[in-house]
Amino acid sequence: MNEHIVKSYEDELNTLGAACVRLGGLAESQLGDAVDAVVRRDPALATKVLQQDDRLDEIEADVEQKAIRLIALRQPMANDLRKTMAAMKIASNLERCGDLAKNIAKRTLVLSEIEPMPALSRSIERMGRLVEARLKEVLDAYISNDPDRAMDVWRRDHEVDEHYNSLFRELLTYMMGDPRTITACAHLLFVAKNLERIGDHATNIAEIVHYEITGEQVSPADRPRSDDLQA
Amino acid sequence: MNEHIVKSYEDELNTLGAACVRLGGLAESQLGDAVDAVVRRDPALATKVLQQDDRLDEIEADVEQKAIRLIALRQPMANDLRKTMAAMKIASNLERCGDLAKNIAKRTLVLSEIEPMPALSRSIERMGRLVEARLKEVLDAYISNDPDRAMDVWRRDHEVDEHYNSLFRELLTYMMGDPRTITACAHLLFVAKNLERIGDHATNIAEIVHYEITGEQVSPADRPRSDDLQA
Repeated sequence: MNEHIVKSYEDELNTLGAACVRLGGLAESQLGDAVDAVVRRDPALATKVLQQDDRLDEIEADVEQKAIRLIALRQPMANDLRKTMAAMKIASNLERCGDLAKNIAKRTLVLSEIEPMPALSRSIERMGRLVEARLKEVLDAYISNDPDRAMDVWRRDHEVDEHYNSLFRELLTYMMGDPRTITACAHLLFVAKNLERIGDHATNIAEIVHYEITGEQVSPADRPRSDDLQA
Repeated sequence: MNEHIVKSYEDELNTLGAACVRLGGLAESQLGDAVDAVVRRDPALATKVLQQDDRLDEIEADVEQKAIRLIALRQPMANDLRKTMAAMKIASNLERCGDLAKNIAKRTLVLSEIEPMPALSRSIERMGRLVEARLKEVLDAYISNDPDRAMDVWRRDHEVDEHYNSLFRELLTYMMGDPRTITACAHLLFVAKNLERIGDHATNIAEIVHYEITGEQVSPADRPRSDDLQA
């Protein structure tokens, strides 16, 4: 009987982690599709991203409900409590990544109607691929329970910021050079900002993974930063 | 002895709520100062906002730690669990409001160096005051345990969105009319976006307060929306 309870408790913890990993896979896929959609000016793909977003919201709600249930009924301590809290927080960060990908998809629908700007698309794509890699790496760290890999992502946070800063300047230069591009560039400013924020969520997840495994907080104040206009 | 335990448990719950209320007061004050700073082009006030932000981060971390401790050691059920989770989530939303106010303050330092644009400042101020009012109202609802007041805030989410949309158009018109304003307007676009996001956090808090008190989820899908470019 006791073993059954222990087994089922472990099952619950594993189910929670698995739900988080699944959410991570969906968030990766939404981000990849959103970047492809904006770069290729593909409204059909953007629409697919918009339609998929509900699934991420549902899984996040499910992770939270399972985590609360587990905390209330199983009273996890120490490692298990950290694991439970980590799943809940990672799910929340991933759901936000999904929202940001959805916003990129919505802007794609507007941008697809406007003249293409190939040079800017290439810059967006480069930044997009970098952010995709960060999200993938931090999910790998979570799945493999590897705090060092998580810290690798954390330490490289500034690379995304640098891309964002250079894209910000590039967009402003474009707008000044040709005021007809202002509307498109304003949307691309937010696309770039959304990518930067997804990078920031990857960094948050890295901190959560590190704390989950080691029990030691990484101070956000120590985070390497190259841009002082982040939010 | 039993009464002592019950008393102390209630004390812990109340302390948690009080920490959240204090964080709310600080977030309100940071937002008010950030709006004043950007409108009055006051770098000294902006610097004060930047310096205060750490306090919000500390209180949020404290609320989370207290909440986890309470869950682990007291195993709260039903109402008390909802109260504990609500405090943790509200604190997280308020800390994000603080981050967004900080970002407005950072942009104020840049904007103070650039030519003033009085018409835009007035629009930013109007939107800022509206968002301040929303945050104040939802904190009142939390303090007075009033789900109806929370739902009033929730139902009026679209007013902030409408202000944001009109400000977005106004800023683009400005940029097109005078390309020399592009850098300033790009920063003001993000100031407006930050205010819109603080409004969104107020709406999130309204949902959390409603759930905390009634045990019934409000579906974010039912939220009245006037802008489809939110994130």
